Amino acid sequence: MRIVAAKKLLKANDLLAAENRAKLAAAGVACVNVLGSPGAGKTTLLEALFAAFGPRTRPAVIEGDIAGALDAERIERLGVPVVQINTDGACHLDAGMVAAALGDLDLQAIDLLFIENVGNLVCTAGFDLGEQLRIVVLSTVEGDDKAVKYPAIFQGSDALVITKCDLLGHTNFDPARVAADFRRLAPDGRVFQVGATTGDGIPAMVEWLLAIREDR
Amino acid sequence: MRIVAAKKLLKANDLLAAENRAKLAAAGVACVNVLGSPGAGKTTLLEALFAAFGPRTRPAVIEGDIAGALDAERIERLGVPVVQINTDGACHLDAGMVAAALGDLDLQAIDLLFIENVGNLVCTAGFDLGEQLRIVVLSTVEGDDKAVKYPAIFQGSDALVITKCDLLGHTNFDPARVAADFRRLAPDGRVFQVGATTGDGIPAMVEWLLAIREDR
Repeated sequence: MRIVAAKKLLKANDLLAAENRAKLAAAGVACVNVLGSPGAGKTTLLEALFAAFGPRTRPAVIEGDIAGALDAERIERLGVPVVQINTDGACHLDAGMVAAALGDLDLQAIDLLFIENVGNLVCTAGFDLGEQLRIVVLSTVEGDDKAVKYPAIFQGSDALVITKCDLLGHTNFDPARVAADFRRLAPDGRVFQVGATTGDGIPAMVEWLLAIREDR
Repeated sequence: MRIVAAKKLLKANDLLAAENRAKLAAAGVACVNVLGSPGAGKTTLLEALFAAFGPRTRPAVIEGDIAGALDAERIERLGVPVVQINTDGACHLDAGMVAAALGDLDLQAIDLLFIENVGNLVCTAGFDLGEQLRIVVLSTVEGDDKAVKYPAIFQGSDALVITKCDLLGHTNFDPARVAADFRRLAPDGRVFQVGATTGDGIPAMVEWLLAIREDR
């Protein structure tokens, strides 16, 4: 009974996700679903990317949060179009919420859309939003055992972004361990090591994202 | 329809939680539900507490993880009784899982039980496990905006433990901000600042936990 209900909900989500995907493709917008724990540094990563993109792309953001608009305010300060979704307690975004947010964006005016999901290394993995790519953000201060402990989210991601690498010297985090665990789960996945506040590693991510946008 | 099903599930959980609570009270075991994001430092905090308790308590741990037994292996190395729950994808422990785990512990041989929940700052908040106290663990490297963004888990907690305070100088984390946000949500809550790897702040937590155990 419990399982049947969950399957029905997921099926409805998949239908809406397919509609979102078709709508974005028709408008020529590349879309990246950004996943990770609370505090992994998702918003700070976006801020660093936007500063580095310069005029080469027309980005926008859908911010998912349980409550408040702190992250959306940070994005707005950069002059990047942003729509805030408040899930009102729900632990992940779903395709229906994203469909509503897409209605509030001018898709003709953008070409690279980031969806910053609710901070959650578990539940967000199960919901396709209609994105083209998924990236999972893991900070060096969260511990290097996370791919083993939360495999689903790593398995479904196209890239792992290891953030807060400027703090590597202060932790026992081994980037090689988590990269190896990630590659076992996602053999074709890319791994980026960045320090968003120092800018280290950001240019490589920018080139990768611009290439994806070009392929769109 | 969706809401009704969720309410039914929660009601069943509450009944099982009440049974767990009665069983623990009858055995004179104090029980603490430990919540927080992946990588907040929950297991490291428990390791530091166990080292500091000495012979003054007889602790045990129920470890909740989606997959694997990495944390349980760390606890076992300390000679502390531990039961691992694998949720097999579920994003939080529920009272039924804890009831099963309690069956594997000798409650007469222990007096202070920690339940380390799945790393998740959202979903774990909604499920009573039958604990006496809840503590939420937040690390200095997760950002000081988390109580505003994830209010439910802070509102339901008896104490906030700010971990990784040895990294304070390397972050823009303001402990006063998060403590103020926490006190708005939980006016009677205690706030502890610890550095589990340095031992800072651990003695105050030990005294607090021993007093709770005495009151049992």
